Amino acid sequence: MRYAVFGTGIVGRTIAAKLAALGHQTVIGTRDVEATLARTQPDSMGNPPFTQWHASLPEVRLKTFAEAAEGAEAVINATAGANSLEALTAAGADNLAGKVLIDIANPLDFSAGMPPTLNPVNTDSLGEQIQRAFPDAKVVKTLNTMNCEVMVDPSRVAGAHTVFVSGNDAEAKNQVTELLLSFGWPKARILDLGDITAARGTEMLLPVWLRLWGALGHADFNFHIAGT
Amino acid sequence: MRYAVFGTGIVGRTIAAKLAALGHQTVIGTRDVEATLARTQPDSMGNPPFTQWHASLPEVRLKTFAEAAEGAEAVINATAGANSLEALTAAGADNLAGKVLIDIANPLDFSAGMPPTLNPVNTDSLGEQIQRAFPDAKVVKTLNTMNCEVMVDPSRVAGAHTVFVSGNDAEAKNQVTELLLSFGWPKARILDLGDITAARGTEMLLPVWLRLWGALGHADFNFHIAGT
Repeated sequence: MRYAVFGTGIVGRTIAAKLAALGHQTVIGTRDVEATLARTQPDSMGNPPFTQWHASLPEVRLKTFAEAAEGAEAVINATAGANSLEALTAAGADNLAGKVLIDIANPLDFSAGMPPTLNPVNTDSLGEQIQRAFPDAKVVKTLNTMNCEVMVDPSRVAGAHTVFVSGNDAEAKNQVTELLLSFGWPKARILDLGDITAARGTEMLLPVWLRLWGALGHADFNFHIAGT
Repeated sequence: MRYAVFGTGIVGRTIAAKLAALGHQTVIGTRDVEATLARTQPDSMGNPPFTQWHASLPEVRLKTFAEAAEGAEAVINATAGANSLEALTAAGADNLAGKVLIDIANPLDFSAGMPPTLNPVNTDSLGEQIQRAFPDAKVVKTLNTMNCEVMVDPSRVAGAHTVFVSGNDAEAKNQVTELLLSFGWPKARILDLGDITAARGTEMLLPVWLRLWGALGHADFNFHIAGT
């Protein structure tokens, strides 16, 4: 498959590297290619600049959101949630129409400091916002409830644990399920919650996830729904 | 121990029955004793009226919130979240002061129909509201992330699964942990998330819980944090 991964942060890099390792033709999308390549300092989380990571994986091309989406069969949104709608708008509705759009972002709002809150929340979700803004894309919300290393290597967490999937298009969810299987997720651990409004529920797992991260001191954990 | 359980619905009944079975002197608190006893119809969820349930467990006395709290060493809030502050206010701050106040409620807001939303949410929680309103009580949030049958009988759900605890008073959390152990929770599955602000996170698990309830068609499931 030809994938465009939106977002040059640690989540986008991790997903793109996994897709490339699985043999998919993978492009990373960014707002401004030159600006991304010009960064020489670690980001606010201490991750190395993009070029340093990119040096080890040059076959993953860096393009603008629009160019990346245009050439892709499916798009994965791994941008910061606060920037996702802007990034997808820059990609262009025509370049998203008819395609599976996998949303793995969370609408974390750091504007009032730590811990972040969610915006939107409760009566809406980022997944729903994206589906409303791009009605011709087939939005599937998944993977947003765990650390990115766990997303692409579920064996990092011992025991059974769950990845949620939601979206309005059954065939798109089937395609995403195939991708998750290729990432190493067991079929029985992929839980379909129904339509895209379920993104409200999975995004609202973030506050307890952040709290657990603090309490446990590591990110190699995940939600499991026992009894399924 | 002498426990007061606030709430005459299915959650309060289930908790009270378990406490009585464990040999605790247990009282149920309600706003208006006569009104509760006068009901002869099933509630909106189809549960039988209180008197019908009570006939099988007459040793659990029914009292007003204030009377129930006054005679108790610890109070368990199992009222509907929208009514919790009113119920606790009726109990009286003096009757709660210095006591462990176990909050197992969720602030579900049904005012806009189904599914319910949460109020408060995101930047506040019911657990925090209760602690602020009754600063001399030792509020511990727990058990609010599962069906009431699972609360008192974790063996209903196969495999490992988690109960969260949060609160500002370490000794109060120890007391609640002892109670959870007596309910059948393994020590390793009782997860301390820190102070009462963690109630934000656990209350925000409700939307995905409700979604899972719909998707699975039963309530014998629970969150587990794999990797702990």
